[in-house]
Amino acid sequence: MKKPIIAILTDFGLKDGYVAAMKGVILERVSEVYFIDISHNVEPFRIDSASYVLASVFDFFPAGTVFLCVVDPGVGTLRKAVVVHTEGKYLVGPDNGLFSLVVESRKFNAFYVENYSLFRHNISSTFHGRDIFAPAVAYLSSGGVPADFGPPCDIQVGEWAKVVVGESEICGRVIHIDRFGNIVTNITFRNVENLSKGPISRVHIKDYIISGLVKTYGDVSQGALCALWGSSGHLEISVNHGNAADVLKVRYGDEIILEFSKK
Amino acid sequence: MKKPIIAILTDFGLKDGYVAAMKGVILERVSEVYFIDISHNVEPFRIDSASYVLASVFDFFPAGTVFLCVVDPGVGTLRKAVVVHTEGKYLVGPDNGLFSLVVESRKFNAFYVENYSLFRHNISSTFHGRDIFAPAVAYLSSGGVPADFGPPCDIQVGEWAKVVVGESEICGRVIHIDRFGNIVTNITFRNVENLSKGPISRVHIKDYIISGLVKTYGDVSQGALCALWGSSGHLEISVNHGNAADVLKVRYGDEIILEFSKK
Amino acid sequence: MKKPIIAILTDFGLKDGYVAAMKGVILERVSEVYFIDISHNVEPFRIDSASYVLASVFDFFPAGTVFLCVVDPGVGTLRKAVVVHTEGKYLVGPDNGLFSLVVESRKFNAFYVENYSLFRHNISSTFHGRDIFAPAVAYLSSGGVPADFGPPCDIQVGEWAKVVVGESEICGRVIHIDRFGNIVTNITFRNVENLSKGPISRVHIKDYIISGLVKTYGDVSQGALCALWGSSGHLEISVNHGNAADVLKVRYGDEIILEFSKK
Repeated sequence: MKKPIIAILTDFGLKDGYVAAMKGVILERVSEVYFIDISHNVEPFRIDSASYVLASVFDFFPAGTVFLCVVDPGVGTLRKAVVVHTEGKYLVGPDNGLFSLVVESRKFNAFYVENYSLFRHNISSTFHGRDIFAPAVAYLSSGGVPADFGPPCDIQVGEWAKVVVGESEICGRVIHIDRFGNIVTNITFRNVENLSKGPISRVHIKDYIISGLVKTYGDVSQGALCALWGSSGHLEISVNHGNAADVLKVRYGDEIILEFSKK
Repeated sequence: MKKPIIAILTDFGLKDGYVAAMKGVILERVSEVYFIDISHNVEPFRIDSASYVLASVFDFFPAGTVFLCVVDPGVGTLRKAVVVHTEGKYLVGPDNGLFSLVVESRKFNAFYVENYSLFRHNISSTFHGRDIFAPAVAYLSSGGVPADFGPPCDIQVGEWAKVVVGESEICGRVIHIDRFGNIVTNITFRNVENLSKGPISRVHIKDYIISGLVKTYGDVSQGALCALWGSSGHLEISVNHGNAADVLKVRYGDEIILEFSKK
Repeated sequence: MKKPIIAILTDFGLKDGYVAAMKGVILERVSEVYFIDISHNVEPFRIDSASYVLASVFDFFPAGTVFLCVVDPGVGTLRKAVVVHTEGKYLVGPDNGLFSLVVESRKFNAFYVENYSLFRHNISSTFHGRDIFAPAVAYLSSGGVPADFGPPCDIQVGEWAKVVVGESEICGRVIHIDRFGNIVTNITFRNVENLSKGPISRVHIKDYIISGLVKTYGDVSQGALCALWGSSGHLEISVNHGNAADVLKVRYGDEIILEFSKK
């Protein structure tokens, strides 16, 4: 068997031992593995942002990759845990909308994760990442099948993932702000392509209006605002050599409108 | 031989090349290895916090793991370096109390690290992690024995690690604040169990009083304060969906009192 | 073939999926590899700082290592991409001065990276790290030769890398501030050695004057300012147990003067 890849995404940050504890649990169970840290600095509890980051890397990992995803404000409550199987890859995590942007355009199977015999014996109420999700990931990485965890199910999709399509505009929202202050929205190139509206005329965000889209930051002068299709196919608002989120005082959840020319 | 696991804990941060330099030094000497980063964002020079993070992951790593631990405010001065052997795992680092919470409940052997023939030839006065500890870790990972480094010794245990037991209370202190603002103390579930006092009635921290303990954050309403046994067995103070350290304005070293009901 | 080491340096930060996307792209192409993260928290767009961090670790990695370096304020514009071959190691990245401090004292060959048949098919205008540099690194790690990428070339060296030598002083500048607030300059021990001026008498930075150099932080009292040759051979200004950059209010690019005694 090829050495399994385990790609990990959390909001655990990097000052604590939480991520390492999960890796230790996995290494106790699987002798050969690649760990890839997607990010552990997702804004605490921001499921939209985590879902976006996951979707932005999903396509670049080979079939067989197991994604361990823990952004879990409801840990210890009644929220369910799930494993999702799509395009030969597995996603393991809480069923709270975290997988919304991966599954929206893909066929998938999902199963509840509730077979306690596959978990650690003492389950902490506050750290399912270590005690439930890590053993589940180790089990899948060793060739276990997702149906062993529990019954098939559907999964939660977040309201924040949905855009609203009007006569001559699409209304979306800010779902991620990246390290450079680029503002990422839930409006995708595919959304727009499928609608076959007229050409894009303007982008509205806060009190700002941006005319049309550019291809790269350098297409506008330093310090100028621009809108473009980002490297993951989502509409982004940027400032060349600057921090758009600071300039626009944008926050997660803020509204954005993409306006089309009348045809 | 199985591929050795090297788990690394420092306060070096992630903007510099310090951690990578240590890994490079190890890779020059050991051809196959797993590097696991425990954390490099320990609060600079906070030995208590580092010791806690180390103890919180220690049990989850397989026998044979070598822990490379460098939180070292006294680098270049007369402080000693040690290797500790316990439960089939090795700990390498400065002898400044960093291993207090791992050794307090375990049998161990320790040796001074002072055999210069096993280090890099030019030793920087400010970066023993790269020039002494990394080669020492490589040596252990290749099957070297700890007694080759120097004579057996005892190790430093920090004052900050000790709780004070009274008639009807335990007095401890804040030793770690995690990424979510959870406040971790040096009082452990084992402390309390061994004392067989009455049930826990109240927790005092700063000017706040918390009644009893809960099992998970979701047991109290959003924004409410609670006390619980954290996932590593230490008493923690949290705010559900919030940042307890910010709300309570708590700092490392602050006092906490766990009060028991009279029996 | 020995398992290749890929050491990665970026200013991408750790909250996004940018680094993981590059690793995924590489893992699709190379089945066995060591990823070492040098740093992803280089100050955004600071080529001087990135160049220093790279130089500070370069010597500690074995021959064969491929360095993937992306600090790229000009992504999508006309700046070139290069691969540099020196001491049996490869450097891949934008040609913007990033490799200045590695090449200044080494013989090297460089080639433009412009053979599109070796890249990903759809190249984003804003993420060459994923679409050009990662495939290039995978190609080199699989035994590909740098001349396949394009014609031989010279590379950019930053003005910021150069010191000015006077009668009785060397004038340099701040090129990096580390996690602890240590101030790193572009003046190296080798600069001084080669000049064979008199002994060092004073260091001038902002309005401060520091007398002579010490060997380690602990040679001065807690809170005191000192100058020393740092672990990478560059002149550094530090505060024992403190943050020199905060105390001196120093910024990248600030001037520093190293003064010699008259012989």
